[in-house]
Amino acid sequence: MVTSVDTVTKKTVAVGPVALECGETLQDVHIAVETVGKLSVDRDNVVLVCHALTGDAHAVGDERDPGWWDGLIGPGRYIDTNRYFVVTTNVLGGCNGSTGPSSINPATGRPYGSSFPPVTIRDMVHVQYRTLQKMGIDRVHTIVGGSMGGMQVLEWGILYPEAVENLIPIATTAALSPMAIAYNDIGRQAIMSDPDWQGGDYYPGPGPKKGLAIARMVGMVTYRTDTLFHQRFQRRLQTNVPEWSRDATFQVESYLRYQGEKLVNRFDANSYLCLLKAMDTHDVGRGRGGMAAALSKIRSRALIIGIEEDRLFQIEEQRTLYRELREQGKDAQLWELRSPYGHDAFLIEYEKMGPVIREFLEG
Amino acid sequence: MVTSVDTVTKKTVAVGPVALECGETLQDVHIAVETVGKLSVDRDNVVLVCHALTGDAHAVGDERDPGWWDGLIGPGRYIDTNRYFVVTTNVLGGCNGSTGPSSINPATGRPYGSSFPPVTIRDMVHVQYRTLQKMGIDRVHTIVGGSMGGMQVLEWGILYPEAVENLIPIATTAALSPMAIAYNDIGRQAIMSDPDWQGGDYYPGPGPKKGLAIARMVGMVTYRTDTLFHQRFQRRLQTNVPEWSRDATFQVESYLRYQGEKLVNRFDANSYLCLLKAMDTHDVGRGRGGMAAALSKIRSRALIIGIEEDRLFQIEEQRTLYRELREQGKDAQLWELRSPYGHDAFLIEYEKMGPVIREFLEG
Repeated sequence: MVTSVDTVTKKTVAVGPVALECGETLQDVHIAVETVGKLSVDRDNVVLVCHALTGDAHAVGDERDPGWWDGLIGPGRYIDTNRYFVVTTNVLGGCNGSTGPSSINPATGRPYGSSFPPVTIRDMVHVQYRTLQKMGIDRVHTIVGGSMGGMQVLEWGILYPEAVENLIPIATTAALSPMAIAYNDIGRQAIMSDPDWQGGDYYPGPGPKKGLAIARMVGMVTYRTDTLFHQRFQRRLQTNVPEWSRDATFQVESYLRYQGEKLVNRFDANSYLCLLKAMDTHDVGRGRGGMAAALSKIRSRALIIGIEEDRLFQIEEQRTLYRELREQGKDAQLWELRSPYGHDAFLIEYEKMGPVIREFLEG
Repeated sequence: MVTSVDTVTKKTVAVGPVALECGETLQDVHIAVETVGKLSVDRDNVVLVCHALTGDAHAVGDERDPGWWDGLIGPGRYIDTNRYFVVTTNVLGGCNGSTGPSSINPATGRPYGSSFPPVTIRDMVHVQYRTLQKMGIDRVHTIVGGSMGGMQVLEWGILYPEAVENLIPIATTAALSPMAIAYNDIGRQAIMSDPDWQGGDYYPGPGPKKGLAIARMVGMVTYRTDTLFHQRFQRRLQTNVPEWSRDATFQVESYLRYQGEKLVNRFDANSYLCLLKAMDTHDVGRGRGGMAAALSKIRSRALIIGIEEDRLFQIEEQRTLYRELREQGKDAQLWELRSPYGHDAFLIEYEKMGPVIREFLEG
């Protein structure tokens, strides 16, 4: 059974002015939202999906316009849109319909660019909460997301413990590790070193395409694994010349460069910088007396999913989260999957994750 | 006991024209050499040290001018310069005294720049062999090196099996993995995207400083581990401002950026590109009917050292090498060490590696 495109509703929700953690206020914030399924009369069947760094609100689609989580969500799928009302929002700071650095600053009539304020994961979650309120939704059945999406899931459980019943953080962490901060900074330096970045005020120019492509390449190597690259590329060349030739390109290089170029065509470099920064600030314990104190606020059930081969958010980070919740007597489960895809398994391994998520939702 | 600077002899050896694997010939090749200790009358005590990507011929020094492998090599140390005559050469393609892209092309009177030919690990080894011959050395007691140095060690065993008694390849591989090729390509793209690279013909200008710094940052994250960064930096800030501030810098970022800037001041970007390419072409089986056929040529004893936490040259790569040599009945040992330093342990963990190397040399 395939969901028809008619079942996906796209809209933009105006949430008004938003005071940010940094002390600045964004006027006239808009958030892009997509919904699939039907809100129940009791309004108790909402599944909120939080996307990762370069994701967007189009988690669920159809054959003509596939969503990035179609393998998990749809009619009759693991998260069944015949049963749940699935809501996905594009994050604050993004570039796919929500207010971000490329949006017009109402005060100046020009894009924010370098003047766009720093945004945190907590800011994103506050804005999501207000977006749902504007849509008439006060309670959420389940919040699910991987990577940066998983950070939002955790913050939801802490900031709005009474508003959410179930949390499913996937391939994520309670606080971004120094190694992940390091990788983020390489991407950041690549973008900011590109002369076309122009200090962030490059609109309506093309922006730092080369820098953003390199940043994406840095991301890709952390999202995948040695094993996968061995299986897929070995040392094969793309070109029919000897390896030592100036014109030689290995298939893995060709693949990575293609991934870089592909992102440049669909993503804004300033948004990328904004979201890297938001991830860097992710530490549930910040300003709350540490991780344990922060997690103590959670009232929801939690299914934590980790990937053993994840190089970016190491499995030990999910285990730490699980142990802490259990020690506090919370209703938490940990499920570890193995996958050569590494971190990106949360966007690929639906047959492995799906049944566990379905069982958790039914349990 | 400290070796005095008088015991280190520095020279440049002219090896004449060199025909490369790529078919081009480099005229008038010079190789920077440093030696420590005394060549025995029988000329049977030579230890050849091969350096890694950004290394040089100064493996052994003293308090005033430390060498990069002083912890391992020196009078009374694990490789004892009272006993061995230690020779270190700067590789072909390098920028610390040997012929490389920044050298003057005798045909034009200008630096090679973009016209410098592609060089392979095998080319480096051929040139090292000829350098030793010019020094009156026909046989080598031991060849030791880590990372790219280890690639040269393996090629020595294959190209000159009768000329070398013992091989000590550390933290290396029989063929560069697709993941390592991917990391190399990110560094390459960062350098080549920097407008100051100017297609490789930037001399006498400063060259692509930003691009090279980013390439170094990419290298650094693969040389170290999550564990080390956790221990050393946690999520501490360098600056006394909140994490979400525009001015916030994490200590790990500050460290990485410093490492990038430091390399720029001592290394030529074109040499960096040249050596990345040489590593990419490293596959002992290339043109020899595969790895097993290539390794069958080895006649030397071998001590393979691997680091379990090495993210760049995974421990399984050293195990594969060891198993293959053993299956062929070679005199090979594998020694695995554990270290939070990961790949870079070969430049740090002397107390762990040293005794094993000493015992192997004596055995």
